[in-house]
Amino acid sequence: MLYLMRAEMGEQPAVLRRLADEAWRAVRAVAQQIRDRELRYVFLAARGTSDNAAAYFKYLFEIENGIPCGLAAPSVVTLYRAQLRFHDALVVGISQSGQAPDVVEYLAHARANGAFTLAITNDLESPLAQTSDYTLPLHAGAERSVAATKTYIGTLAVIYLLSEALNARHDAPQRLRHAATLIEQVLQREPHIQEIVDRYRYMRECVALARGINQATAQETALKLIETCYVMCKAYSVADFMHGSFALIEPGFPCLLFAPEGATFATTLESASKLRAGGAETIIFASDADILSLARTPIPMPADIPEPLSPIVYAVAGQLFAYHLALARDLNPDQPRGLQKITQTR
Amino acid sequence: MLYLMRAEMGEQPAVLRRLADEAWRAVRAVAQQIRDRELRYVFLAARGTSDNAAAYFKYLFEIENGIPCGLAAPSVVTLYRAQLRFHDALVVGISQSGQAPDVVEYLAHARANGAFTLAITNDLESPLAQTSDYTLPLHAGAERSVAATKTYIGTLAVIYLLSEALNARHDAPQRLRHAATLIEQVLQREPHIQEIVDRYRYMRECVALARGINQATAQETALKLIETCYVMCKAYSVADFMHGSFALIEPGFPCLLFAPEGATFATTLESASKLRAGGAETIIFASDADILSLARTPIPMPADIPEPLSPIVYAVAGQLFAYHLALARDLNPDQPRGLQKITQTR
Repeated sequence: MLYLMRAEMGEQPAVLRRLADEAWRAVRAVAQQIRDRELRYVFLAARGTSDNAAAYFKYLFEIENGIPCGLAAPSVVTLYRAQLRFHDALVVGISQSGQAPDVVEYLAHARANGAFTLAITNDLESPLAQTSDYTLPLHAGAERSVAATKTYIGTLAVIYLLSEALNARHDAPQRLRHAATLIEQVLQREPHIQEIVDRYRYMRECVALARGINQATAQETALKLIETCYVMCKAYSVADFMHGSFALIEPGFPCLLFAPEGATFATTLESASKLRAGGAETIIFASDADILSLARTPIPMPADIPEPLSPIVYAVAGQLFAYHLALARDLNPDQPRGLQKITQTR
Repeated sequence: MLYLMRAEMGEQPAVLRRLADEAWRAVRAVAQQIRDRELRYVFLAARGTSDNAAAYFKYLFEIENGIPCGLAAPSVVTLYRAQLRFHDALVVGISQSGQAPDVVEYLAHARANGAFTLAITNDLESPLAQTSDYTLPLHAGAERSVAATKTYIGTLAVIYLLSEALNARHDAPQRLRHAATLIEQVLQREPHIQEIVDRYRYMRECVALARGINQATAQETALKLIETCYVMCKAYSVADFMHGSFALIEPGFPCLLFAPEGATFATTLESASKLRAGGAETIIFASDADILSLARTPIPMPADIPEPLSPIVYAVAGQLFAYHLALARDLNPDQPRGLQKITQTR
């Protein structure tokens, strides 16, 4: 049986290609606004999976565009009724459904208080879209699985295009098509991942680690493991993990580590050695042979992925891991207990 | 035997009183700089416990001062070598030791790129202090326990004073003395907490929940539980927890919930009902009788705590919980495995 979650994971390359074909014009218009208005800061309001996409936004725009970004705390507006003053700021609301009431209210507040506002959503008619100055749609088609996959990848892709448009890199759609191909390569590795998850049938807790821009990947994989497998998984920056939480490490403690090539690789490799020395059970997603050799369970990834695109590709490996672990545990990944597709929080 | 951690927890009221006596002048000078320079945004660089204090800073300054705040991702500077542009921004580095190399490097970068920089540290001679335009010391005396307690509380107190100075509330030192008295009241409840932790002798995982400004309290308690008890504990905003991670809830799943009076109370009460309905084991820190009645293990707190001070008072209850749970598990809270007092990450 093909579950909805897996079917929608399979649509992800098509979503990227559709965005490459159809989103570039709208994305460039938003980039033009950011330039014309000389916006200097970005704040991002989001919940759940979308909050992980917001982490990607923050790293990407800081690294590639030099614009400091912060994550919003919606309760400051919705419960404390604070009056935030936004000068020269872009405020972005991310919600696949566009329904999250606290994100909508935050955007309305930001717009009334000087911000230029942007919605990234899969529903152009949603309250979030109607509240914002501009909307960038995900072109992902309706998502029916409670565990979001294709809208997460679509959101990252829109963010990627926007960053590249701001840097006037006109080959961005082409690069996104390349990412679609890379995702297909990851999906082809499904039989391997299906085989190795059995070992984690009775895993109760774990951590998901990464450094830098793949922080988003660690967070998203942790959320997928929680939602579909009920595994208590906490995501950390590898650096933060060394401050205190490293005390969790005892022989056999499972650590998922995302270690793509790029600026963070050397320090991640060091951390992998420390984890191994501490006896951790290391599950390493990487293309580099040295770091894979430190894994109890290596998960080889395609090589030569441009670093800004790596979260789009690595997230799919995380999805496969969570999905097949759910099946190995005889759980239905389409019916997480206690959840509905749209969560209403204030 | 009195462990270092507990001895330093006992010093916390004295630290607050010392700050009330000695810090106000320096704090007002920094507030004056923020006003004179018309700083419009704040970014905060910190690791571990200090990062939890940074969360308090963000909520407090957004709620009380209307200044949008963001948490920094140091690797953007230290590994990716991004050029961040800070216009009209205050960048704050928080580190009790003032040694964290990535925080120091982030501050140096921010200062060179237009930011006004502030160090909050327990060591006036530290690299962090030497890198920043201004330094606010914690007046906490040397901290010897690996698990930070009095420097965490001292950091929150300095942040509180700075926010109040910016609002020209000249009774702030007096309010801080009141918080010292409230902490003493919490410490007097130690025998109760010592008694109830036995029930959690074999707890392997839990979540720590709060909404709004006590997000910092949930995060800090989670870190203390990890460091001293090796309990896998993840902190959430109650609202975020409802987006996906609520799937963790099954009968008996332990949830620590911090629910002080104030703007977030009503929604937190609703969440407590949902947790109870889901069969969760609720450990509730609160003063309100209604929400305490939803607790499997109520931890009554002093009433009428001004909301901006509540994280200072509630954190101490979290410390007592973690400390006594460590003892109940026959662990030495002064010797967390795998950790040293100063963590060097790049």
